[in-house]
Amino acid sequence: MASSKAFVQGEPDAPVLKTSSIPGAQSSKRIAELSEVFDTRSINMMTDYTKSVGNYIADPDGNYLLDVYAQIASIPVGYNNPALAKAASTPDMVNAIINRPALGNFPSHDWAEILKTGILKVAPKGLNHVFTAMAGSDANETAFKAAFIYRRQQERGGPDVEFTQEELDSAMKNQAPGSSSLSILSFKTAFHGRLFGTLSTTRSKPIHKIDIPAFDWPQATFPILKYPLEEHAEENAKIEQACLDEVEHLIKTWHIPPAAVIVEPIQSEGGDNHATPNFFRGLRALTKKHNVLLIVDEVQTGVGATGKFWAHDHWNLQDPPDMVTFSKKAQTAGFYYGNPALRPNKPYRQFNTWMGDPARALLFRAIIGEIERLDLVNHTARVGDYLFTKLEGLQRKYPEQFKDLRGKGQGTFIAFDNPKRDQFLAKAKEFGINIGGSGANAVRLRPMLTFQEHHADILVEALEKIALTL
Amino acid sequence: MASSKAFVQGEPDAPVLKTSSIPGAQSSKRIAELSEVFDTRSINMMTDYTKSVGNYIADPDGNYLLDVYAQIASIPVGYNNPALAKAASTPDMVNAIINRPALGNFPSHDWAEILKTGILKVAPKGLNHVFTAMAGSDANETAFKAAFIYRRQQERGGPDVEFTQEELDSAMKNQAPGSSSLSILSFKTAFHGRLFGTLSTTRSKPIHKIDIPAFDWPQATFPILKYPLEEHAEENAKIEQACLDEVEHLIKTWHIPPAAVIVEPIQSEGGDNHATPNFFRGLRALTKKHNVLLIVDEVQTGVGATGKFWAHDHWNLQDPPDMVTFSKKAQTAGFYYGNPALRPNKPYRQFNTWMGDPARALLFRAIIGEIERLDLVNHTARVGDYLFTKLEGLQRKYPEQFKDLRGKGQGTFIAFDNPKRDQFLAKAKEFGINIGGSGANAVRLRPMLTFQEHHADILVEALEKIALTL
Repeated sequence: MASSKAFVQGEPDAPVLKTSSIPGAQSSKRIAELSEVFDTRSINMMTDYTKSVGNYIADPDGNYLLDVYAQIASIPVGYNNPALAKAASTPDMVNAIINRPALGNFPSHDWAEILKTGILKVAPKGLNHVFTAMAGSDANETAFKAAFIYRRQQERGGPDVEFTQEELDSAMKNQAPGSSSLSILSFKTAFHGRLFGTLSTTRSKPIHKIDIPAFDWPQATFPILKYPLEEHAEENAKIEQACLDEVEHLIKTWHIPPAAVIVEPIQSEGGDNHATPNFFRGLRALTKKHNVLLIVDEVQTGVGATGKFWAHDHWNLQDPPDMVTFSKKAQTAGFYYGNPALRPNKPYRQFNTWMGDPARALLFRAIIGEIERLDLVNHTARVGDYLFTKLEGLQRKYPEQFKDLRGKGQGTFIAFDNPKRDQFLAKAKEFGINIGGSGANAVRLRPMLTFQEHHADILVEALEKIALTL
Repeated sequence: MASSKAFVQGEPDAPVLKTSSIPGAQSSKRIAELSEVFDTRSINMMTDYTKSVGNYIADPDGNYLLDVYAQIASIPVGYNNPALAKAASTPDMVNAIINRPALGNFPSHDWAEILKTGILKVAPKGLNHVFTAMAGSDANETAFKAAFIYRRQQERGGPDVEFTQEELDSAMKNQAPGSSSLSILSFKTAFHGRLFGTLSTTRSKPIHKIDIPAFDWPQATFPILKYPLEEHAEENAKIEQACLDEVEHLIKTWHIPPAAVIVEPIQSEGGDNHATPNFFRGLRALTKKHNVLLIVDEVQTGVGATGKFWAHDHWNLQDPPDMVTFSKKAQTAGFYYGNPALRPNKPYRQFNTWMGDPARALLFRAIIGEIERLDLVNHTARVGDYLFTKLEGLQRKYPEQFKDLRGKGQGTFIAFDNPKRDQFLAKAKEFGINIGGSGANAVRLRPMLTFQEHHADILVEALEKIALTL
């Protein structure tokens, strides 16, 4: 077993299983109670957050599972983190909770400072502005709106050209030219959210999209690479080039021209699909060439999980993305940008009542503090390597059960395919592990940044046992 | 001056003006600082929330304005309300802030209780379920999705009929039949949000819509009535019937058939446009007749401001709306519904990572507690009548300055038109009032529920002075 000083005090040494199956009696009772008023058919586990600690999620029956799913990749530094609890108990936080501002109209006197010492302190290279939002989905939609406004501004001849009366009138009728005939290009198996604009770019599963009206926007093929990537470099490069060619073809020919391309650094909900830095550099070059904006959706990949603060830091881009969206582990949301022309030419074009939540911005600042204090991004790079090596061992023993192991050098953002994936996930609870899937066949690991070597040991041992029972 | 026991301790007796104009030096400095990283062109007033108290909003220069705008109608029970501060300081709140769940997968053991003692305690009559969201815009979009899913389920022949392969395949391409060819019918001058689905139903101003792609959804004329309503009952009834006829025509003929009609009880952003209970009863009957759902958007009207907890309580409907959306004063968001068939037939069709925010649900519970403790809904009905009577006096003196005074019997949800509206709003600060507009010409009053007779006296006196300077 690896030895490492525990970041978290008070965690159990190992998963604790009090009931023969989950949900136990207490949990079942509470699920039944909740069903009366709330749709519970997607419940994974009834949770007791007062007892959950660090990397362990607790339920009302006293079970403690090692949690490598982390609220769909969104708990950053462990349950009941003391530094976060302290930040959440300050007068500033109480103030932010009870006096929620309409940020665009009535920002608080210290909003600039909160941004500069928090959200903007970790802004991706080249991006120094932020538009704050509530969750990943509206972060992406506001980025889309910025792209449409920017593109039409260019087409009009600049920010000072006034709208025509025809544009103003037709916009009110949802008709061109006021309502623009522009699109966002996304990739097959992408996930960018489930509101009407983002859902039109989401291509994960039919169940996410069926019956909901959608815009006729284009989708390009995302590279379907062979793993391990380094053993198939030449073949993969060809696959990636074909995808880039398809992107270029769609940009040039789609009947509703794209104002932006949106892409995830690692397609997360869609099955943990990786591409190489070369692909993304090519995408940046292509979008520059055709004057199409590049939006990098870091909602799931951002904030350290890949061993860099932002996953696109792995790409060594010459020109930064035009916009980078964030949410989940940031516990707040929005998009970063650098080009001031991405601010619309007039106020109130990009606006809403709350425009984010200062309480959540304060929390992100505390999360950043905790990440810095414990050097959690570098830590995650290291523990990811440790974990990946152990998983490679499992893969050698059980090649079909740990198929297409991927995420090497990407921190703990690791996944593998299993032929009985859904059973695998369900079975994991019996071995004390809370784990999620992505796409149709992948088991995805999304531990917190406080996941350490001793947790990796427990996890890998359990994964082997789970595989053996299936 | 009216005498009434003050709900709020620590308020100034009257507005305090320390600088000759707003923004003063301190505020200007902070606005400049914020501009470096955040779009500040829509700033109304730099605010110090640590000093703001009750009905008074403070700025960094020491100014205190009587706030009848209340963060665009969203502060419910006063700044720094002690009961809310207490709720925000509890271990439950800290827990909710730092351990944010993916509610659909991992609800907390007490989520049912939080809902039942909070959000659902004030559920509109006939509606006993809730889908929680983040803000008004996504509350409306999730309601739209529920409507589309429900309608297609009916068309398919019920919840047990499986999707066809063609539907599944075409949905992934954003094409019919999988992506449904259905619409949401909204009204001219309506405001329902600014995400892509809601913006397609929003018809407030071109600046909200221009350059953003929109769905080709239908809009009906909202009644443009003559005020005072009671003096033009017969004429108004005809206008309303014509609008209902137009709704029926659009339902029967629009090339993308509506699955739902969405309507505000009082069109708020669009200019404080009222209609009578008779109109809304007619709309309920029409939608029932044509099997189209009725979504009542109570984002701005809900939670007491009209002198009823929900504005649609004024209508005495026989059948409740199918869905009622809420946000703003609730400080959380979502939609209520009653018909269990509005739960999609399968899980994960209506789902996202956070699905709301338990911290904000706890806050709403505390707000409800404060509303009950002080009987603030009935209070608001009374103080609204008091205020309206005084405004009628102003209107008699200055008929052109306080034109089309409206909102009688609707609590403090009152508005009037002014020919120099924008100057009126700007000038108000010099008289110690923070006030907002709606539509092109309306001055809208959106005080908090803690607004009392002595505030009304200050307000009316100031309104007269403002009018005299223009």
